[in-house]
Amino acid sequence: MQPIVARWRVRGMFVTERTSVIEKVIAHIDAHKEDHVQRLLDLLRIPSVSTDPGRKADVLRGAEWFNRLFAEAGIESDIVETAGHPAVLADTGPVEDGGDRGRPLPTLLVYGHYDVQPAGDESLWDSPPFDPTIRDGAIFARGSADDKGQVLTHVLATSSFKQVAGRLPIRVKFLIEGEEEVGSANLPGLLRAQRDRLACDYVVLSDTPKLDANTPAITYGTKGLIYKEIVVTGPRQDLHSGSYGGTLVNPGNALAAIIASLHDADNRVTVPGYYDNVREISADERKRLGELPFDENAYLTSMGAPALEGEKGYSTLERRWARPTLDVNGLLGGFTGEGASTIIPAKMSAKVSMRIVPDQDPEKTSAAFDKAVRSAAPKGVRVEILTHAVAAPYLCPTDSPGMSAAKQAVEAGFGKRPVLIREGGTLPILPLFKEVLGADSLMIGMCHPNCNAHGPNEFFTLADLHDGTKAAAHLIHTLADQPG
Amino acid sequence: MQPIVARWRVRGMFVTERTSVIEKVIAHIDAHKEDHVQRLLDLLRIPSVSTDPGRKADVLRGAEWFNRLFAEAGIESDIVETAGHPAVLADTGPVEDGGDRGRPLPTLLVYGHYDVQPAGDESLWDSPPFDPTIRDGAIFARGSADDKGQVLTHVLATSSFKQVAGRLPIRVKFLIEGEEEVGSANLPGLLRAQRDRLACDYVVLSDTPKLDANTPAITYGTKGLIYKEIVVTGPRQDLHSGSYGGTLVNPGNALAAIIASLHDADNRVTVPGYYDNVREISADERKRLGELPFDENAYLTSMGAPALEGEKGYSTLERRWARPTLDVNGLLGGFTGEGASTIIPAKMSAKVSMRIVPDQDPEKTSAAFDKAVRSAAPKGVRVEILTHAVAAPYLCPTDSPGMSAAKQAVEAGFGKRPVLIREGGTLPILPLFKEVLGADSLMIGMCHPNCNAHGPNEFFTLADLHDGTKAAAHLIHTLADQPG
Repeated sequence: MQPIVARWRVRGMFVTERTSVIEKVIAHIDAHKEDHVQRLLDLLRIPSVSTDPGRKADVLRGAEWFNRLFAEAGIESDIVETAGHPAVLADTGPVEDGGDRGRPLPTLLVYGHYDVQPAGDESLWDSPPFDPTIRDGAIFARGSADDKGQVLTHVLATSSFKQVAGRLPIRVKFLIEGEEEVGSANLPGLLRAQRDRLACDYVVLSDTPKLDANTPAITYGTKGLIYKEIVVTGPRQDLHSGSYGGTLVNPGNALAAIIASLHDADNRVTVPGYYDNVREISADERKRLGELPFDENAYLTSMGAPALEGEKGYSTLERRWARPTLDVNGLLGGFTGEGASTIIPAKMSAKVSMRIVPDQDPEKTSAAFDKAVRSAAPKGVRVEILTHAVAAPYLCPTDSPGMSAAKQAVEAGFGKRPVLIREGGTLPILPLFKEVLGADSLMIGMCHPNCNAHGPNEFFTLADLHDGTKAAAHLIHTLADQPG
Repeated sequence: MQPIVARWRVRGMFVTERTSVIEKVIAHIDAHKEDHVQRLLDLLRIPSVSTDPGRKADVLRGAEWFNRLFAEAGIESDIVETAGHPAVLADTGPVEDGGDRGRPLPTLLVYGHYDVQPAGDESLWDSPPFDPTIRDGAIFARGSADDKGQVLTHVLATSSFKQVAGRLPIRVKFLIEGEEEVGSANLPGLLRAQRDRLACDYVVLSDTPKLDANTPAITYGTKGLIYKEIVVTGPRQDLHSGSYGGTLVNPGNALAAIIASLHDADNRVTVPGYYDNVREISADERKRLGELPFDENAYLTSMGAPALEGEKGYSTLERRWARPTLDVNGLLGGFTGEGASTIIPAKMSAKVSMRIVPDQDPEKTSAAFDKAVRSAAPKGVRVEILTHAVAAPYLCPTDSPGMSAAKQAVEAGFGKRPVLIREGGTLPILPLFKEVLGADSLMIGMCHPNCNAHGPNEFFTLADLHDGTKAAAHLIHTLADQPG
């Protein structure tokens, strides 16, 4: 306990004493490597599948597991009920702030989730999804990467710090929810209700991947999501295409016309005003993205598509991470069996989603889409538009002290400088953290990008578990050390 | 037997004797009205569902039923095997031709089918589909209108003639098949193999409806059919729309673009050359169609669509009967469940059919469609086009002696002048009759246009059965009497 206390008191001893603490913590993590693996294996045996009502008790066991782990580590925690599955909240408590940094020490909130996706078709797994198996240096189990293994690194790092030094150099809080895989419906309410308890300067989450197996990554942006369903109806029931064809508008043709009208020949979205608030990619970011070790051919091969294509004027990574998109997710209606049945369908529908970027306004964009669809609909059909999701995009400043601390921590933990990337997917909670807590989110990716997060044979490597835990410990250390 | 023989021998007795024969035949039909109803009820009890492999024996029973009826009437007939269900062929035999008409007496081939559609959901029937029930002056049963009741009128008329007069004034042949509802795959081969036996001057078929309940109709044109399936594929498997969106062409968007490209703003088909050989509607026909008692509002209401729309410059009936169309029949692919799943689908498909008109060439139009689809496909997806059906359109001259005979016969049988109409549906056998036998087809519609031919509660009215039988008898009579 002496060294870390000394840090705040004795300016002259600062470097020596501090180094000694983090070195001891890392040594502790190294010494407990096998124990940490066993902890994760234990956790992965709980089938905390939040989508399955029959697994409600198992989901609760997931919360209890984390609650117990915090208790063992001497970290105050409790299980907070929601209308759905509960969350675990923990807090290492206030730290004595010597004030010698020139500004208060930051508080860090670790966010993660203990619920997991369903296993899916178990026959596709090489080992049982809830009987974790180690092979080829990796743990194979549902939830190993998403998110049990990744969130656990932060808990293990924090408890290691506590065990080695008796106290933490900064205050660390935890919010580990049980409904991420079912849309986090109760998280916004929880966040608002517990706003004071969760107050923090930065959120850190590890629920995104590395760039590739050997390149750790910090993700600084996510896209928002607007998910629509367009339902076009015409006649009361399916009609014979011979007897009626040519006399009325075919809902299938109308739906195709509507969807086709939403892009121009340059693959730009034609919804009026769609790009008005899109933040242009800066010269710096463009340069940085261009320098990433991204192999377009390997990417194309991994997808199996004939070609990479998209909005004119932007590179593949720019389109993937920084440009808004509009995609058909599904089409359904009319005769879909084998062979031929000649009908004019009564009803046709399409699932269409938009991934939006800063600073597109989700609600305004949603309304603009509806208007564009209605004005593209031919006379002679009815159009109904359902909205299944509206979520904001998020962008974390890349020049904050927190981001600097994260970069240093990841480099120290993984032994390799991380790249800064964005993500085309959506994490609705991030803009909410910003709005409710005023905190930006540091997304430290620890798992392999092809870790099969929602598929069979999900895995998290032993090396990533260990390096990730060290990086998480370094983050606590580097955050305490950032200049004000 | 005397009167009809007298006709050909004694020029002076011609009018008197002939009139007396047809009057006797009609009197016979009137006298046997109830017997004819019982015959049809008996036939309708046979569930000759050609689509159902389990009904093979029942389908054969349908053929045997007709074969037996011909035998009872003293008309030579037999059951001709095919690779599928058999056909019944019958022939009243050559007639002695006095040659006083100035040209040979015509031979008539009655075409029809004894197979029926499946009953579908029997719970939607008010009475069992294969236990024919008479209510409100109609027989309710599967096949009552399509086509057992309608084809039976011709058999009953012919046997009545035979019974009253001992012989027929013209030669009447029958081709009653058992595979109409499964696409008549073996009929072209049968037709070619039996070409001499089936040689005729006119084909008559009653497998189309009246214009409305009170207006008998002769149909003189049908559309052809080209049925395609467009399959668009992109990535090897469905991809996360966030992680991959914007980097590749979405097969759903591509499919919509392809389909939308096939029509212009005037609802004209854009396939190059599509209209090149379309026979324009003559001023006469346009006038005639315009004078038909067709209630657009009632038609629209019956469909339940918001509006009547179609190719610019043509009336509803012109579009319905005389203009080619292009319709989506079905769309399928990607996520089609409840709510939202964010994917870029690997594969999307559309069923698209064209109803073509004289003198569009089916094969050329089919090839032009494929070419147009391929050239509309964006780079970055693969397109496969399947062809499920190609059938030619048909148009019967409206000024032939046969057509005059048919008009007189229908007016005499139904007591009301028939209207001449076309049909948007497809009867692939008609152009084949023309090609193989050199004969045009007279389509005499006897059933109600809303007779539920392929749905629950199919019906054929007792009045239409009786009037249809009289019209069929008159046709034999009037064909014998047409000026050369």
